Amino acid sequence: MANDIRVTVWNEFRHEKQHKHIAEVYPNGIHEAIAEYLREQPGLNVGTATLDEPEHGLTADVLDNTDVLIWWGHMAHGDVQDEIVERVHQRVMNGMGLVVLHSGHFSKIFKKLMGTSCDLKWREANEKERLWVVAPGHPITEGIGQYIELDHEEMYGEHFDIPEPDTLVFVSWFEGGEVFRSGCCYQRGMGKIFYFRPGHETHPTYFNPEVRRVIANGVRWAAPVQGPPRTFGNIKTPLETIKS
Amino acid sequence: MANDIRVTVWNEFRHEKQHKHIAEVYPNGIHEAIAEYLREQPGLNVGTATLDEPEHGLTADVLDNTDVLIWWGHMAHGDVQDEIVERVHQRVMNGMGLVVLHSGHFSKIFKKLMGTSCDLKWREANEKERLWVVAPGHPITEGIGQYIELDHEEMYGEHFDIPEPDTLVFVSWFEGGEVFRSGCCYQRGMGKIFYFRPGHETHPTYFNPEVRRVIANGVRWAAPVQGPPRTFGNIKTPLETIKS
Amino acid sequence: MANDIRVTVWNEFRHEKQHKHIAEVYPNGIHEAIAEYLREQPGLNVGTATLDEPEHGLTADVLDNTDVLIWWGHMAHGDVQDEIVERVHQRVMNGMGLVVLHSGHFSKIFKKLMGTSCDLKWREANEKERLWVVAPGHPITEGIGQYIELDHEEMYGEHFDIPEPDTLVFVSWFEGGEVFRSGCCYQRGMGKIFYFRPGHETHPTYFNPEVRRVIANGVRWAAPVQGPPRTFGNIKTPLETIKS
Amino acid sequence: MANDIRVTVWNEFRHEKQHKHIAEVYPNGIHEAIAEYLREQPGLNVGTATLDEPEHGLTADVLDNTDVLIWWGHMAHGDVQDEIVERVHQRVMNGMGLVVLHSGHFSKIFKKLMGTSCDLKWREANEKERLWVVAPGHPITEGIGQYIELDHEEMYGEHFDIPEPDTLVFVSWFEGGEVFRSGCCYQRGMGKIFYFRPGHETHPTYFNPEVRRVIANGVRWAAPVQGPPRTFGNIKTPLETIKS
Repeated sequence: MANDIRVTVWNEFRHEKQHKHIAEVYPNGIHEAIAEYLREQPGLNVGTATLDEPEHGLTADVLDNTDVLIWWGHMAHGDVQDEIVERVHQRVMNGMGLVVLHSGHFSKIFKKLMGTSCDLKWREANEKERLWVVAPGHPITEGIGQYIELDHEEMYGEHFDIPEPDTLVFVSWFEGGEVFRSGCCYQRGMGKIFYFRPGHETHPTYFNPEVRRVIANGVRWAAPVQGPPRTFGNIKTPLETIKS
Repeated sequence: MANDIRVTVWNEFRHEKQHKHIAEVYPNGIHEAIAEYLREQPGLNVGTATLDEPEHGLTADVLDNTDVLIWWGHMAHGDVQDEIVERVHQRVMNGMGLVVLHSGHFSKIFKKLMGTSCDLKWREANEKERLWVVAPGHPITEGIGQYIELDHEEMYGEHFDIPEPDTLVFVSWFEGGEVFRSGCCYQRGMGKIFYFRPGHETHPTYFNPEVRRVIANGVRWAAPVQGPPRTFGNIKTPLETIKS
Repeated sequence: MANDIRVTVWNEFRHEKQHKHIAEVYPNGIHEAIAEYLREQPGLNVGTATLDEPEHGLTADVLDNTDVLIWWGHMAHGDVQDEIVERVHQRVMNGMGLVVLHSGHFSKIFKKLMGTSCDLKWREANEKERLWVVAPGHPITEGIGQYIELDHEEMYGEHFDIPEPDTLVFVSWFEGGEVFRSGCCYQRGMGKIFYFRPGHETHPTYFNPEVRRVIANGVRWAAPVQGPPRTFGNIKTPLETIKS
Repeated sequence: MANDIRVTVWNEFRHEKQHKHIAEVYPNGIHEAIAEYLREQPGLNVGTATLDEPEHGLTADVLDNTDVLIWWGHMAHGDVQDEIVERVHQRVMNGMGLVVLHSGHFSKIFKKLMGTSCDLKWREANEKERLWVVAPGHPITEGIGQYIELDHEEMYGEHFDIPEPDTLVFVSWFEGGEVFRSGCCYQRGMGKIFYFRPGHETHPTYFNPEVRRVIANGVRWAAPVQGPPRTFGNIKTPLETIKS
């Protein structure tokens, strides 16, 4: 429909092709696990794109017709062309929403938008993660309980080297003793960015109903607003008379 | 309809009854100037309440059925009963949105929610105000240009003694030389609060189409979210085994 | 010395007098455990005050000569007179720093400054707490490691019903499965407020060197600044000529 | 002295060499106008560096011995080598403070740290600027009045395309009708960044006592803290036993 939010789910899609045990978790790729859920939601118009497509599937045309881009990458951040990163960045500046998932914390586009190293601690030990809501009332928590429990996930621990979020929505507890700021909202340019931690490729996290709901909520929250364009440059004629 | 946002426009409604020149600007009261516009907007279900009604028109039943409360007060802040203020505060904690207008900065409910004096500089000189958008991309700026110009308004100047807003949306320029943080967003409890500066009772500001649009946008932004309830208290049984 | 920071450590001082096992932990009261450390630090001039002194030890004179007030209270929040709360609030508005410890989250002064319920989850199970630094580079983390570990503490869990901190410095991990925003910075009026979670009366937490260091750092961070006074009120003569 | 803050004032230093009327305003360069003031302040150890020196005067050794870097650039942002930008960025991540002045908003280092376009409106009309303090109590306002008035400055107007500041300290009023967020504080990595607007090369702004005081305050605020180092990477051995 005319007012649908147009979503593009981008996935590196390498792990699933290279490792049988990951393909068993995500037989159609992580992007399809996310997209299949989003396609069932009202008001969303969902496509996908992957690294090994021409222009990584992110042609100017695709991006111009994307309201919210979801990003999952891990082993091949370096293979993403700088030109495409620049193109995505421009679209975020002009209002496209961006939902960055899990290991996407180290993607070129997230690091460029944050301005920091985006580094963190990590451990693969199949441990328990519990994501606590610390911002009840925020649209991204719609339909969620007071926490989301994931029996087996990769650990990400503080310090997470990001700018302090505009709004912190989730904080994770890990069985091994760490905490992590797991749901982080940012405004950059006219675009809204939501970083959401869970989703290691070896775990079926993107089939978890609450994780899926958070992603859908993030998409709705990050959708562009038809507000004033940003206007810049030399304003030779002042609005008011200048005496001097 | 079932999913309409239920809005109550609260007005002190004293100036309009006591001063002929103000009654000429707002013949049905400031609340009706705002409500008549909101009633025309899709998805809003609009009522009004005023100070001199029983319980100031804000009975437990009215508040329980209000998603977003709009507040205009000025000369009679002290006449608002503490019990009603407490009731409104409870509703904000539980998710009701609150849009505080102009001289409402000194209302009991706004001061209670902010925790500061909420004091400011002011001048009645019919001067020009220009509200600049500093947060393009924010839902409250939908349909607005890069600034709103009001030919004649009361001046409010910094320092405005409020907590730093979660998001600053508008900054005002005044002809007499001052600036003011004119559009300020806060989350308190599960409720969202939007303070919007313009609207002195002697000026027809609430008939201005862009001011009205901002108020409607504020209502939509502040509408409650069906997320996790806040749960508190003694959690005797831990989620994890405690060794000690 | 002339430029010393004048600190007043305020303690309810009831638990220690009523319960022998608490008196054994804090024989001179919690205030003295904190004050004895602060007195050894350069540039601090330290006094104490307790609930059962006249005016709770917080006379106008004491407060006028206090740069930073530290607040510990728990079982007798209701016994603190509203008039004294108002006096402390005024001083914070005018620049006095305030360090609120542990159960002080429910003190009248903290709730008044926050504008929210300040409620939380809690459990007394002598469990392990690990406070992670999430804001390295912040002055309050000076001399601290990447986390502080406390073997036995009361648990406080999210959701903690506070305004989103201006800066979040610590996040706690609890053995029983919860997380908590444990170090929270706020500016209110001209005053700086630091909430720091640890310090249940049954544990010797205020003898922990890192906890003590954080409190001293908080005092230095919250010390008043000799900047412009806040000026308010009717500015009849504009700075610039008004045409209208 | 051992604990002095080591400041390096970096200036592009091209305008002053190419244009006689600018050399008349800043005969020794903008860097010297700033440095001569800072050298008189207690506890500061001040050096300078300029674009046309080898490695722009910012060798690894110079940066390793700089606590706070001040940056003024305008006509030659593109001449700053990417390698040096990367080196400065690394130092900010590791705690070096950065004070970015005026047209430095478009420097490579500021854009890299912000992640946005950093674009704005501008006008050279010798108009009046009045910088209002909106954060009294902030260390950067020490010794300043409620506003700073500059009779003749270049105008910068909103929208300024930056992330919302961690703390907004100044808002400018311009005679021609615009406003601008003129004093903006950020934490990035372990480094603190202060953007301060005034200082067009044709005006003697850096001889203004209050502008100078703000820069010195910014230096003190941005000085590094000896807190925990950021530690990242694979934490194979968990702090707690993992059951799964």
